Amino acid sequence: MNGRIVTLTTDFGTRDPYVGAMKGVLYRIDANIEVVDITHEIGAQDVMEAALTLAASCPWYPAGTVHTAVVDPGVGGARRAVALRTKDFFLVGPDNGIFSLLLRRDALIEARAIRNEALMLHPVSATFHGRDIFAPVAGYLAAGGDLRKVGPKIRKLVGLDLAEPGRKRGKIVAQAIHVDRFGNVVTNLGQRVLEKFCDASACRIEAGSFTIEGVHRTYSDVEKGEPLALFGSTGMLEISVNEGRADERLGIIVGDSLEIMKPKNTLKGRR
Amino acid sequence: MNGRIVTLTTDFGTRDPYVGAMKGVLYRIDANIEVVDITHEIGAQDVMEAALTLAASCPWYPAGTVHTAVVDPGVGGARRAVALRTKDFFLVGPDNGIFSLLLRRDALIEARAIRNEALMLHPVSATFHGRDIFAPVAGYLAAGGDLRKVGPKIRKLVGLDLAEPGRKRGKIVAQAIHVDRFGNVVTNLGQRVLEKFCDASACRIEAGSFTIEGVHRTYSDVEKGEPLALFGSTGMLEISVNEGRADERLGIIVGDSLEIMKPKNTLKGRR
Amino acid sequence: MNGRIVTLTTDFGTRDPYVGAMKGVLYRIDANIEVVDITHEIGAQDVMEAALTLAASCPWYPAGTVHTAVVDPGVGGARRAVALRTKDFFLVGPDNGIFSLLLRRDALIEARAIRNEALMLHPVSATFHGRDIFAPVAGYLAAGGDLRKVGPKIRKLVGLDLAEPGRKRGKIVAQAIHVDRFGNVVTNLGQRVLEKFCDASACRIEAGSFTIEGVHRTYSDVEKGEPLALFGSTGMLEISVNEGRADERLGIIVGDSLEIMKPKNTLKGRR
Repeated sequence: MNGRIVTLTTDFGTRDPYVGAMKGVLYRIDANIEVVDITHEIGAQDVMEAALTLAASCPWYPAGTVHTAVVDPGVGGARRAVALRTKDFFLVGPDNGIFSLLLRRDALIEARAIRNEALMLHPVSATFHGRDIFAPVAGYLAAGGDLRKVGPKIRKLVGLDLAEPGRKRGKIVAQAIHVDRFGNVVTNLGQRVLEKFCDASACRIEAGSFTIEGVHRTYSDVEKGEPLALFGSTGMLEISVNEGRADERLGIIVGDSLEIMKPKNTLKGRR
Repeated sequence: MNGRIVTLTTDFGTRDPYVGAMKGVLYRIDANIEVVDITHEIGAQDVMEAALTLAASCPWYPAGTVHTAVVDPGVGGARRAVALRTKDFFLVGPDNGIFSLLLRRDALIEARAIRNEALMLHPVSATFHGRDIFAPVAGYLAAGGDLRKVGPKIRKLVGLDLAEPGRKRGKIVAQAIHVDRFGNVVTNLGQRVLEKFCDASACRIEAGSFTIEGVHRTYSDVEKGEPLALFGSTGMLEISVNEGRADERLGIIVGDSLEIMKPKNTLKGRR
Repeated sequence: MNGRIVTLTTDFGTRDPYVGAMKGVLYRIDANIEVVDITHEIGAQDVMEAALTLAASCPWYPAGTVHTAVVDPGVGGARRAVALRTKDFFLVGPDNGIFSLLLRRDALIEARAIRNEALMLHPVSATFHGRDIFAPVAGYLAAGGDLRKVGPKIRKLVGLDLAEPGRKRGKIVAQAIHVDRFGNVVTNLGQRVLEKFCDASACRIEAGSFTIEGVHRTYSDVEKGEPLALFGSTGMLEISVNEGRADERLGIIVGDSLEIMKPKNTLKGRR
């Protein structure tokens, strides 16, 4: 099932030699690997942004792709390095929750801690596991390597500190989990959960100081400067402002709650 | 004639998951495709910048390359999506003039509107045709697909709002069509047209408040801070300032006219 | 020994059409070439930064890789264009010292000036040798071309203006050769030289207004705002400040000297 594509998602930027070195390690293992940049511009050590990015881009790749993610605040410390097999892919990176949103879309089959030192580059540096551990293991798997040789099976992965949406008096209580660089507020409420709850196009969303009516399809469905709700490319409910910053306009920060209510019968909404 | 290379030119930036998703779609169609980034940093919705970039880079690729461009202010609206065959390439993108400068260098053979829904990813989103329409069609063509199956033939493509250089009392009247991020002013006057008109190295160019004498080869042909004219990488006449911004120094904005005169016999120019 | 991978290291940025054009030229020579971006964000005309980047990333690539570097303040002037064969790689670029740090790690076997005009794109522009000279020659070599046909052998390459570390009264006198964009100060002192001199973890380093004790492994080994010394990804001794700029905090600029002393017997250091 292994494929020849290795994707890279990091917070290394594209100016320094780090990404170039990782690619070299991969091509040296097998010059027929195809290395694909997803992005190297994840905010420094922003594991949540990486998790959202992986969930929004990795599912589109061919089966067998090895998705490699290195946003790794714990590098050099006690956190585990892991290699996972899911229904469709291999995932290689630190065990810090970075794959947790992707795993909601693509079921985990097998998880192993990376321990086999024969696969690593030596001396393993304290600061650059991307080159010395993750790229070598990703390349090994892309070249047809055996996941069982990577290291011992593990039972439980570290998750993101991410509450599930709750219920309270007939409402859904969701949570702001990320603010992107445009000020869009990403929540933990997935499209399917909301659509089971009610007609998304007619729900009411209390977000910060505003009540937003209905989930729209695109920014320009509302006036410039007005807030709206839509499903982002991750499939999560997002709060945005047409040509503005939702976080500032609505006064929302990560961790804040949002309440979603069913349409009133008497509602005279915009749609 | 189809090749296996697909190039991407977009205004998506490289931080968000959009480009990564498009690449996944392409590789899933055929893992042997080679996806090549031209740039993802076209100014937001700047179709003219994209058109200039495509004209300056696409012609160098091997025959059969599928050049894909997504700078698409009209996404989700009534604009058509098109797939074109030229003498050398396939072109896939919105029908908004984005390919019009490239088509001056590489003759159009066949134009089709993208209508075949069987080629698209469903549900087709309102905001991300790059992933749902353009990448699937580009991948289909790169993998050897039949252009005729993409959709019906069309007669006329949307052009850029781009005047041709005119003539007035023995002068060429050209127009500023773009200012790049360094302040260089790109005009609609091509090298061949100017060279037919007179000896480019001795012409006089009235641009804003300045008269520039002769087209030079490189910035350092003039003093620091001085304006000069040269042919840019698109083959168009450009006005620049050595280590400065031509738009500010000469007071030129997009749409302004420039007049090009033949050398005077009595001219005592710099060269 | 030729491989199919061509790497690119330039100061062109990723917004303009330059890199896209170079890739087109390479793929047109041989569509089976794999073009790999190391970085296009070297500081404008910063040959030293390019040399450090090449030394930190190129060695990881498979044997036969063609490393192409275009940071070229002398383009259009008298500087030579060169193609080199080393123990492991081919190197293509301007003869301005850009490969000199890489050549300390990978011995030079053969150096040739690029003169064969049949390999170049015509007309050769004055300003874009990346497209017209370096990419065509890199592609020729990656496709199995014969280095001898590139041009005549040359004896001596231009070096960087880079002093070797000296000795003075039992101390090593090193020099600051580069300040990166984070304010880290890179020196000309390699890890092996320092480790032969003394126990690096216990040496004392006089840098600007500070005495730093011992080379550490990672930034967080010292308090926030404190200076430290470590070996960077190039293998050179670097002076950094944990979450700060070393150049400003220690008052160091490129060319300044640093003195490295053996541990005192009476030293009561931090480690």
